[in-house]
Order: sequence, then structure tokens, then C-alpha cells
Amino acid sequence: MSESIVFAEPDDGVASVTINQPATRNALSLAVMEDLIDTLAEAGRRTDVRVLIVRTAGHVFSSGHDLGEIGGADLETQQEIFDACSRLMQLIQTIPQPVIAQVQGVATAAGCQLVAACDLAVAAESARFATPGVKIGLFCSTPMVALSRAVPVKQAMRMLLTGDFVTAADALRFGLVSDVVADDELEAAATELARKVASASSATVAIGKAAFYEQRELPVADAYARMSQVMAHNAVATDAQEGIDAFLTKREPQWQHRG
Amino acid sequence: MSESIVFAEPDDGVASVTINQPATRNALSLAVMEDLIDTLAEAGRRTDVRVLIVRTAGHVFSSGHDLGEIGGADLETQQEIFDACSRLMQLIQTIPQPVIAQVQGVATAAGCQLVAACDLAVAAESARFATPGVKIGLFCSTPMVALSRAVPVKQAMRMLLTGDFVTAADALRFGLVSDVVADDELEAAATELARKVASASSATVAIGKAAFYEQRELPVADAYARMSQVMAHNAVATDAQEGIDAFLTKREPQWQHRG
Amino acid sequence: MSESIVFAEPDDGVASVTINQPATRNALSLAVMEDLIDTLAEAGRRTDVRVLIVRTAGHVFSSGHDLGEIGGADLETQQEIFDACSRLMQLIQTIPQPVIAQVQGVATAAGCQLVAACDLAVAAESARFATPGVKIGLFCSTPMVALSRAVPVKQAMRMLLTGDFVTAADALRFGLVSDVVADDELEAAATELARKVASASSATVAIGKAAFYEQRELPVADAYARMSQVMAHNAVATDAQEGIDAFLTKREPQWQHRG
Repeated sequence: MSESIVFAEPDDGVASVTINQPATRNALSLAVMEDLIDTLAEAGRRTDVRVLIVRTAGHVFSSGHDLGEIGGADLETQQEIFDACSRLMQLIQTIPQPVIAQVQGVATAAGCQLVAACDLAVAAESARFATPGVKIGLFCSTPMVALSRAVPVKQAMRMLLTGDFVTAADALRFGLVSDVVADDELEAAATELARKVASASSATVAIGKAAFYEQRELPVADAYARMSQVMAHNAVATDAQEGIDAFLTKREPQWQHRG
Repeated sequence: MSESIVFAEPDDGVASVTINQPATRNALSLAVMEDLIDTLAEAGRRTDVRVLIVRTAGHVFSSGHDLGEIGGADLETQQEIFDACSRLMQLIQTIPQPVIAQVQGVATAAGCQLVAACDLAVAAESARFATPGVKIGLFCSTPMVALSRAVPVKQAMRMLLTGDFVTAADALRFGLVSDVVADDELEAAATELARKVASASSATVAIGKAAFYEQRELPVADAYARMSQVMAHNAVATDAQEGIDAFLTKREPQWQHRG
Repeated sequence: MSESIVFAEPDDGVASVTINQPATRNALSLAVMEDLIDTLAEAGRRTDVRVLIVRTAGHVFSSGHDLGEIGGADLETQQEIFDACSRLMQLIQTIPQPVIAQVQGVATAAGCQLVAACDLAVAAESARFATPGVKIGLFCSTPMVALSRAVPVKQAMRMLLTGDFVTAADALRFGLVSDVVADDELEAAATELARKVASASSATVAIGKAAFYEQRELPVADAYARMSQVMAHNAVATDAQEGIDAFLTKREPQWQHRG
């Protein structure tokens, strides 16, 4: 594993992945994205990892793609860069564990997309978000896949067409992040949220996360038909029967978790 | 009709359906869901019912499924339970009359789904909402079909992955409910909203409600093509011509309503 | 070009289209819609137009369709009216330039739809929005195509089923407009927003706008695949390479714009 990405072993199921490139404002170069993909994919396979926090080092969450890499590159290289980016963002939603972005400073372009693509996002109250590609002639077209599925259309368009920053408060209001906390409580708050999610059965959470993204793409009738199946199978599984029994008998459940 | 569900005859077109199981916190057992389906389906066929309010008895709106029923049940029974639940939620959107949830106390799991599935929802300011299945090993996968179509993805995910309650104010902010009122004005406010909707032509409202859910599933171009047809046919119908004439001649319209 | 629509030549790329029918509260009669379609289509073809503001004359933004025209018309005429309306709303999203609605007074029915259909919308703080067709027996079925894709379902349903007005502050909160400003700053704010968008490369903006509406209709995986292509091609285009070089060398970019 490259030192551009630091993986922290799970503590009570909560592991973290840190992009450690403060000198480049945690730019998502092709190498960084590929390291991040490898790290997330490996973490995804580990059953002792029940929740993942994505952090970055330094004052800037992430400035997006490495412009030095995009400037002057040929079409084949550009395609390779944006394919890797799209693979990364989809992987976040494909691995079985919930992924929580912990956001300080600014998150711009693909950095903002990374926030939008995570299942949950905790932002410091001073954090700011933008998709400013339009200002340098490169519209944030891959970021908007995640952005436009997270926030209302007029707000997505405003960010994309102006490149203006939005505050953490606005990001919460529009749905880009799930939590905003005081700057000096950011890490603690992200960790606390992760611990809460990790206290559930990872088998149950894996069923739910996969089902969420599956049903969202379906017509309502198909979504209900499919989710009825998912929920019936979930209900007969070990951890659901344990959880229900524990609830009815007022004791703590003992999860088997994801096997 | 079972006494688990109380149907109140329409007053000026406004009828109500009350889940009357305060002892079980209005749990949606299979029997209750089937009674509710029968009651809603029958109300749906009545032309003297122009709007339906869904109420529940006691301090809790609804605690969701009956866990005593799900604990220990085999796969076939589970499938029967969740199929009934999905049928109930879709029926609310399929009957011709708007359905308004009147929400006090807590609405959890399938109880929260019931709120999300109704066309409108009026909540008391002290009401709270959660999808806490994750805590007992049973992810709220059918509730999320309605929830994820009502609120932004990060907020839906936060509710689903943590099981945390959200306040009525947050529920309004994110779109889960349409109205929040003082606790002691809840019934009056829901009734007033229902009366306002019932003052319109039920023929027109039926066209609009069906069209709403139809167009929402279509690509934009198909939605426009289909809604242009719907609106042209609506415009030549008796109640539209009456309504337009009444408006232009500054008099009260006399609706024929749904025939 | 009819005098019902006034086109103002571009100033630094910002052109405007004014519906000039204050006597009819800027009603969208068939003739007005057809003139507006012609004007927008022609503006869309001009490369010196980089952003379009849609304004209206007088105290009312637009009262929607011309009821005198709909009252008594046969089905064929109604279909012609709503087809023109749907063509107009889709044209706004199809022309290469961003379209900004500048909204004063009230925007009702198809007038509210016009706001929802524009890429961005700046509203005066006293502006109000409604889809009140239900009150005259004619449900706002074509307006809801745009409305239900802009705001949460419960808020859309509340507007459609009650016909109630929502304030500019609520319209911003729910996503119907992108900006709310003091009444006496409305034109200046809309112009400033337009100038900001017009300062970008119109070639880049055209790629982004088309891509936005394309990807929004696709499943996530298809959207990412398609946007990766779009972004790779955007990245090798002249204005992106110029923009990146200008950014990296800390100078102002010189756009070639849309050719």
C-alpha cells in the first residue's frame, strides 16, 4: 500500500482511510485514486471492518483532480483518469460497509464528489464545497453524477454553473452532507457516528446498504417487490432473529455480523 | 370491518381511517394491515369520499411491524407480511383520493413508511420519526422505498444507518412531512387541510393524483408528452370547463365531482 | 418577432427575453408561447449569446395559461396548447445556454412551471409561487413535470393539491429557486448571476448543461460511464487546456467560446 493512503486498522469495527497528500491539497491524482481504490476494495473484503471513515491530512479536504496531470494529457490518458474516478466513486457505494466522509476545509470538484458519493458525510462548520471546474473550462461532469443525486436540481446547477462555494450549513440544508459540527469536534463527531453505525450487525447493514442503492434505481412497484423479498430474507437471518428476541426480552443483542 | 380500524363516514367529503390499537402502539400486524387495505380499498371506491385522513389512536402514531409476529416466523410468513405492507403503501398512492397522515408521538419503521407513503402529512411539533430496524438486525428495506423517494439521500441514509429520531422540524425541512403544527392543533390542522383539498373537484383531483405518480416514473420527454395529453383531456372535462367559467365570471364553481 | 416578446441583444454575452404582456399578467397564450419558442430557439443558435435571462413586464411574473383560450376550446386545440407549453419548457433545457428566470410578484401554474424549468431562478423576496389549477378544475399536470423534479414530493403534492402560495423563502428552501434577493435588487442580482455564468467558456458551459440533463435520466452506472467520456473529451478541448494552463500559471484565461 502506498504512503499516499494511510489505512488505520479497525477499532471496534471502525477503520479509517486517510488521503495523506497535504502538499498537493489531497489532489486525486491517478496514482492516489488507484491506491484509494485498492485500499477501499481490500477493506471492503475484511469482515472486521464494519464502518469506514474517509479522512484527509491537512487543512484542505481535497482539491479534486491533479490539474498538472490533466493539462496537456491526451484523450486516452484523460479517459483513464476519469474512468478511475468513476470507479472509485461507485466502489464507495458497492463495498458492504458504510463509508463516512469527514470533511474539513474545502472540498472542491472531485473532492466535493467524494463527499457526495459517501454514504454519510460529517462536515466541520467552516467547511466549504464547490464544483468550480467551469471556471477553468472543465465542467464538473463526473462530479455532478453524485451531486445531482444528492441535492435539489437548482442547487446542483447553481454550484456547477457558477463554481461558487456553499457553506457547511447550506450543504446540510440541501442534503450534500448529513451532519455539521463545530470544527474542533469534527474527528470526534465522525468517530461517534461511525461507532453508532458499527454497533449494528454488519450483516444487516450490508444487506441494507446494497438494497438502498439497488431500489433507488427501480420503478416504485419493482422496488417494493424487490425490497419485500430482501426484507423477508433479512427477517429470517440469524442477526434479525437475535435482534428481535433481544428487543422483546430487553437484553443486549449478540451479533454474529457479516461472516 | 374489524374494530382494529375505524372508518369515519365523510363529512363534506372528508373521511378518516383510524388505526385503533393503542395497546400495541398501533403496530402494523398482518391482520391490521389487511384490515387497513380493505378499508382503504373500499373508501377508494366511494365517490362521496373525496379526501382521506389516516389517524391512529393513543400517544404513538405507529411503531411499525408487530415484532412478535416477525420473531420466529418462517420465510413464507415473512414474505406474506412484507408483501402486505408493500401492497398497503402502494394502495395509498393508487386510490383516487388524496391521503393525509395525521402524525402524533413517534412514527417508526413501517409507521414512518406510512407517513412517507401518504400524499400529504401533517405532524404535531413534538412528533418524531425513525427507521430503527438496523438496531434490531432488520434493516428498514421496505420503508426506504418510500423514505428515499421523499427525502434527500444523505438524510435517508442517516436515518436508516443510525436509527436515530428526527424531529418534526427536521422532517419538514427534509420533505418527509408537508406541515408541522402545534400539538393541540393537530387534528384541526389536518382536518382543515383535508377540507381545502376536498373543496376541489374530486374528478380533477383523481386525474391529478394518478398523473403525478405516473409522470414521476417517466423520462422527462415522455412525462411531458403524457401530461400534455392528460391536461388536454382534463381541460375539456365538465369540471374544468365549469371551473374556468366560474373563475372568469367571478362566481363559485358547482362541481360534478368523480362520477 | 412579435412585440409580445422583447429580445435584448447580448451585453458581454448576457441577453434577455422579456414577456411583455402586463395587461394579461403575462399569460402564456398559445401565441405568446410560440413567440417565446421562436425567440429562445433563435437565441440558442447565436454564439454571441452565452446566458439568457427570462424576465417579464409588470408586477406579475406570469399567471400561466390564458384561461380565455382554454375555456370552451375543443380537445384538438387543448392538445395544441399543452404541446406548445411542453415544447417550450423542454426547449429551455435543450438550448446550449443557461437560462435564468428573474421572478417578481406571483408565478402561478405554467408561470410557476416556467420558473421550475429554467436552469436557475432568482426571486424577489416578495415573490410567491403556486400551482392553483386544482381550484378551477384543471390540475397542473404539465407544471408538475418540472415542479416534481425540482422540489421534494410532499411539497410538490402540497402545492398541487391545495393551490396554496409558497413564499420565496420556502421556494428557496425546497429548491424551486436558486436565489432570493431583496425586491429592489432583483434585476441587478439576476444580471450579476448571469454575468458570472457568462464569464466562463460558453463551449464548456454548453457541454456541461447538455450533460447535466442527459446524466440525470440514466442509471448511476451508465451516468458515470457516459460522464467519464464527456469529461475526457471536455478535458482535451481548447478551452479546458487554456483554462488549466491559465490557472496553473496564474493568469486570466482567454476563451475561444462556442464556435
